Amino acid sequence: MGNHFGNIFRISTFGESHGPAIGVILDGVPSGIEIDEGKIQLDLSRRRPGQSGITTQRKEEDTVEILSGIFEGKSTGTPISMLIRNKDQKSKDYSHISNKYRPSHADYTYQHKYGVRDYRGGGRSSARETAARVAAGAIAKMYLNQTAGVEFFAYVSQVGTLKLQKSYLDLDLSKSEENDVRCPDPEMAQKMFELIDQTRKDRDTIGGVITGVIKNVPVGLGEPVFDKLHAELGKAMLSINAVKGFEFGSGFEGVKLKGSEHNDEFYEEGGRIRTKTNYSGGIQGGISNGEDIYFNVAFKPVATIMKDQLTVDHSGKETSVEGRGRHDPCVVPRAVPIVEAMAALVIADFDLIRRTNKLRH
Amino acid sequence: MGNHFGNIFRISTFGESHGPAIGVILDGVPSGIEIDEGKIQLDLSRRRPGQSGITTQRKEEDTVEILSGIFEGKSTGTPISMLIRNKDQKSKDYSHISNKYRPSHADYTYQHKYGVRDYRGGGRSSARETAARVAAGAIAKMYLNQTAGVEFFAYVSQVGTLKLQKSYLDLDLSKSEENDVRCPDPEMAQKMFELIDQTRKDRDTIGGVITGVIKNVPVGLGEPVFDKLHAELGKAMLSINAVKGFEFGSGFEGVKLKGSEHNDEFYEEGGRIRTKTNYSGGIQGGISNGEDIYFNVAFKPVATIMKDQLTVDHSGKETSVEGRGRHDPCVVPRAVPIVEAMAALVIADFDLIRRTNKLRH
Amino acid sequence: MGNHFGNIFRISTFGESHGPAIGVILDGVPSGIEIDEGKIQLDLSRRRPGQSGITTQRKEEDTVEILSGIFEGKSTGTPISMLIRNKDQKSKDYSHISNKYRPSHADYTYQHKYGVRDYRGGGRSSARETAARVAAGAIAKMYLNQTAGVEFFAYVSQVGTLKLQKSYLDLDLSKSEENDVRCPDPEMAQKMFELIDQTRKDRDTIGGVITGVIKNVPVGLGEPVFDKLHAELGKAMLSINAVKGFEFGSGFEGVKLKGSEHNDEFYEEGGRIRTKTNYSGGIQGGISNGEDIYFNVAFKPVATIMKDQLTVDHSGKETSVEGRGRHDPCVVPRAVPIVEAMAALVIADFDLIRRTNKLRH
Amino acid sequence: MGNHFGNIFRISTFGESHGPAIGVILDGVPSGIEIDEGKIQLDLSRRRPGQSGITTQRKEEDTVEILSGIFEGKSTGTPISMLIRNKDQKSKDYSHISNKYRPSHADYTYQHKYGVRDYRGGGRSSARETAARVAAGAIAKMYLNQTAGVEFFAYVSQVGTLKLQKSYLDLDLSKSEENDVRCPDPEMAQKMFELIDQTRKDRDTIGGVITGVIKNVPVGLGEPVFDKLHAELGKAMLSINAVKGFEFGSGFEGVKLKGSEHNDEFYEEGGRIRTKTNYSGGIQGGISNGEDIYFNVAFKPVATIMKDQLTVDHSGKETSVEGRGRHDPCVVPRAVPIVEAMAALVIADFDLIRRTNKLRH
Repeated sequence: MGNHFGNIFRISTFGESHGPAIGVILDGVPSGIEIDEGKIQLDLSRRRPGQSGITTQRKEEDTVEILSGIFEGKSTGTPISMLIRNKDQKSKDYSHISNKYRPSHADYTYQHKYGVRDYRGGGRSSARETAARVAAGAIAKMYLNQTAGVEFFAYVSQVGTLKLQKSYLDLDLSKSEENDVRCPDPEMAQKMFELIDQTRKDRDTIGGVITGVIKNVPVGLGEPVFDKLHAELGKAMLSINAVKGFEFGSGFEGVKLKGSEHNDEFYEEGGRIRTKTNYSGGIQGGISNGEDIYFNVAFKPVATIMKDQLTVDHSGKETSVEGRGRHDPCVVPRAVPIVEAMAALVIADFDLIRRTNKLRH
Repeated sequence: MGNHFGNIFRISTFGESHGPAIGVILDGVPSGIEIDEGKIQLDLSRRRPGQSGITTQRKEEDTVEILSGIFEGKSTGTPISMLIRNKDQKSKDYSHISNKYRPSHADYTYQHKYGVRDYRGGGRSSARETAARVAAGAIAKMYLNQTAGVEFFAYVSQVGTLKLQKSYLDLDLSKSEENDVRCPDPEMAQKMFELIDQTRKDRDTIGGVITGVIKNVPVGLGEPVFDKLHAELGKAMLSINAVKGFEFGSGFEGVKLKGSEHNDEFYEEGGRIRTKTNYSGGIQGGISNGEDIYFNVAFKPVATIMKDQLTVDHSGKETSVEGRGRHDPCVVPRAVPIVEAMAALVIADFDLIRRTNKLRH
Repeated sequence: MGNHFGNIFRISTFGESHGPAIGVILDGVPSGIEIDEGKIQLDLSRRRPGQSGITTQRKEEDTVEILSGIFEGKSTGTPISMLIRNKDQKSKDYSHISNKYRPSHADYTYQHKYGVRDYRGGGRSSARETAARVAAGAIAKMYLNQTAGVEFFAYVSQVGTLKLQKSYLDLDLSKSEENDVRCPDPEMAQKMFELIDQTRKDRDTIGGVITGVIKNVPVGLGEPVFDKLHAELGKAMLSINAVKGFEFGSGFEGVKLKGSEHNDEFYEEGGRIRTKTNYSGGIQGGISNGEDIYFNVAFKPVATIMKDQLTVDHSGKETSVEGRGRHDPCVVPRAVPIVEAMAALVIADFDLIRRTNKLRH
Repeated sequence: MGNHFGNIFRISTFGESHGPAIGVILDGVPSGIEIDEGKIQLDLSRRRPGQSGITTQRKEEDTVEILSGIFEGKSTGTPISMLIRNKDQKSKDYSHISNKYRPSHADYTYQHKYGVRDYRGGGRSSARETAARVAAGAIAKMYLNQTAGVEFFAYVSQVGTLKLQKSYLDLDLSKSEENDVRCPDPEMAQKMFELIDQTRKDRDTIGGVITGVIKNVPVGLGEPVFDKLHAELGKAMLSINAVKGFEFGSGFEGVKLKGSEHNDEFYEEGGRIRTKTNYSGGIQGGISNGEDIYFNVAFKPVATIMKDQLTVDHSGKETSVEGRGRHDPCVVPRAVPIVEAMAALVIADFDLIRRTNKLRH
């Protein structure tokens, strides 16, 4: 359990941060998709640590190797498997942490659940696993782009208390990649950068919010009742390391409104049914209505700080622990491609399921 | 797709609001659970419309009939199926809405997706379906109570802009059921009641927030990576009609904190590993750590208002529509047992999966 | 586990032989299928005990009630649920068997597995459960008939040592329903009837073989590797009570042939690729090739005989048990509609999955 | 679809015969199993072509690389992934077959289903995929051996018309590995070897039967109704390349018996409930009863013969094709470890599910 995502367009990831490799199998990918390996590599680069002035130290290189499922540049309908080797697996000395539970990490829960854990790092709970998702998401994006022109956007809309007040509609989303913070508002991006830089100097970490936007979504994605489009999208986002909350459309703010304010009136435009407002966030009754899907994802400050913290060891004895190695004061900017990837995987899966909904399709 | 929830402790619901009946099958329920039919009926009564001064009109009676899976008062390990007949299925005249898309309802998306829909009501998208979940959740609670003493609490913590500022730790949660609003703070409950009453008089609706709390959760529930405990919990909540957001532990507020503030230090207490603070919300690395799980669920104002609204018909022609029948100005209070039920289903499922995690268990 | 079948076109059955009702939910049925309730009832009548001169005693009437998923005569895409009430639930005295393990029944394995069982009959292991499958299969047949003209045939080809030597190609399959034995060869049917009648007089039971034939199967059904069409078909048949074996195409006889004899040469006929012989049984590499699918299903003699047999009780003490009530000397004839139903469910499911295989479909 | 097997102890395989590698992910493997890599390698060697005097030519070496899920010699509860690189991927000229449908291969069905196929070999339909299953099965055997002492045996009981008439009870199963044919009766083994050798000289192929035996099976494996133990076992076997039939216990011969002959009487022995005969094949009502499970699997002669055969090309034009490369006159002996592996995967999965069946376990 736990290592699969999706129903038809389905991924299975494997690998630990300190093992030989991580990877992913995509099952159910339709045949005939043109696969551009460069795009997979590009998204992996956007996710990797050490790509910007925000993170310090080690520069991982995540090179993907495709092992199956592609022939003459196109998907064949068989499982696509991709492998990313782990670098820097030098045999360090881990004796200083092998027996300690790092605060707000998964050390204690894994040890209790499985009776054993790979103490050299987060093991399976490490964010390194998300590289496999990003590679898979790149292929989901190719599928959706080639069938329907679906477009995915994500950007940092909050770091600590610095919150972008503008709606995505008032931003030029193409500018997100122009700065290290991945915030499309240059002025706010600069402020966020300074806050993150100060946090780095303080040997601390800070949280943030990513806003996601999906455009050109076909009508009819999502299944009734339990597998509502936004429920699956929410699960996808909440499965990303450090995520604490998800909201779509009007979200938590929407609770303050009256129905008469919140309801999105329908109108007709060029033969297409549209809504005047979009508090629904592009999803009604759990099914896409063709309007933009937009949502927010809350990330806590990550647990690895470069400071001494009190904790206990396996026997319950009090001790202390201090983060070593790479310092990521704010992981939110490099979580942007992960949010895009998970969104693409959800949409691709529902797009395939949609093909089975009507007698003649 | 879409009508199942859970992996081992798994439910399948069926039925439309205006068909003969709705119901649910529970598969994978362990044998030997004592089933108290009265408790199922009690939770159904807490969910049904017309139970309080908030909702007006029709008083549904949801009587459950158990069809299988129980012998001599105990579960047998075979599927438990439960049926709830729909009342009031008089053949009304629906011609005034059969061809119209009600704003922010699922009419348009269902029609587009399936090419057909039951225009007599929400059909499968009706909140009536949640009665089946509540019946199933009651059995999940019995299982968890008999094995581990897990306790579920849910209460209304916000209606419109009226927001309870206290933490669940500072409230007497047993008082939630003492008022129609299901808010454990009597003073705030009164204010909320007045706001809802005014909304009812305005023929409008309003949103709100439900806070959920789960106590005595065994350590080790939840699976790594995609099926994290909070991810599945989030999906469960987002699958409830009208829900727009989910956060757990520190949630959206947590993004403002530094890691050094947010990290939950471990300590030992009576042979058990505990955390001093609980920003993690009882879940670390996607797996329960034994501390309280707490979360918030945002509900939009429901779409059925008693006012005239502009919309289009199937052909795209402009028309108007007005809500008729029962008026539910704020569904949040009666969504409380649904939140509890979904939480119980998630916990029960992960509790069964946990049994398969270790070589010897 | 165990009560679901299928992936997209998916059924869940529930109910015990001596409970109030049995039933089935079909999930994933596409919208727009014309549902003929009479055909469902007809297949149920073909399965029910006491329909012919073979079985003696009680004449059950299995009346189906459709509870959801159909509107104005067509499927809506929501779950179709059907209920069949159990008759004759008089409170008999079961004390003579409540504590005994009937030989070759599921009494012992259920008791050991669950620690509890409904001793009033087979409970969940009773063949009565197959009525729910037959009802679901009738809808699968409607779907396949309306989309592709697929036709399902099944007939009794062996009873005890009486084995029909003719291939299905040399028989008029429409004649199967003309006699109680459901064998399309009238002469053999008469011999089989006599054997069954003698077995009945002997208060014993006897086994047999059902041959299934599926015509007009679309090319491309079945998935590679584990979910091969014949693997799923085999599982479907082996899941029917009393089945001990499954073979398709050349089957167990095919092992005797050389590759040069067994290979089916391709040729072209009217723009369609065909094979000259059909040892493959219409399936190559696990995927349908458009030729007839044919297969055999072996049924053991059922365990309920009207004779005294030695056995043990729950404590392991030696005792004896004798069958009472209805005597079914050969259940094979009335298993014919079950074989058809399971075949239809497999084909319908793969037909939906096929829609997701190619980029453009 | 189609590349996963199992529910909790679950495998996903990937890779084509002429791609860079094949591999497998095992998900749901409990933590704490001691992993002996040598045993995995041993089973792979038993499966590989060219290991004996039967097959001619190329000697593949299948070297497994474990990429994740194991730490300090034990499983950790995270996915175990294994990779086997393909050798001999020299760029041959495939133009002579790229456009032709080889008789009784999957060329036509894959081309029709996906619109594209890897014409350099069987691609995903190649028996090479089974190496991944064998590696996974070796781990399933370790799990079952360490928890319950379950033992798996498989041997060749028929080649062409040469059929071993003895029951497995009258054979010394430990002798199967002492000859190239994997038949535990030395005399019959010699005859089979001669028949296969003649077939090789004739540039032809021949079929056979493998008998499987599972000892020390815990009582209670298998789920009611659809996921009966023998139904899943049958599906597992039918999913192996070239398999045409499956029977367990009394099988196809059992149909000839009377119930009074076929029923297995219970008795008590040393506090354990046993059966005097075992026509049930260790499974009653779909659930293991602790007696030996035994079954037969029929393999057709494989399609690749070294002779010229008539066929058509993609356009339907008549042409001919002749097998080249390695000649495997009878693949049945080297399918023995595949049968064992699939059996072990089925038993391991049900053993985990069993843990979830009772309130207290």
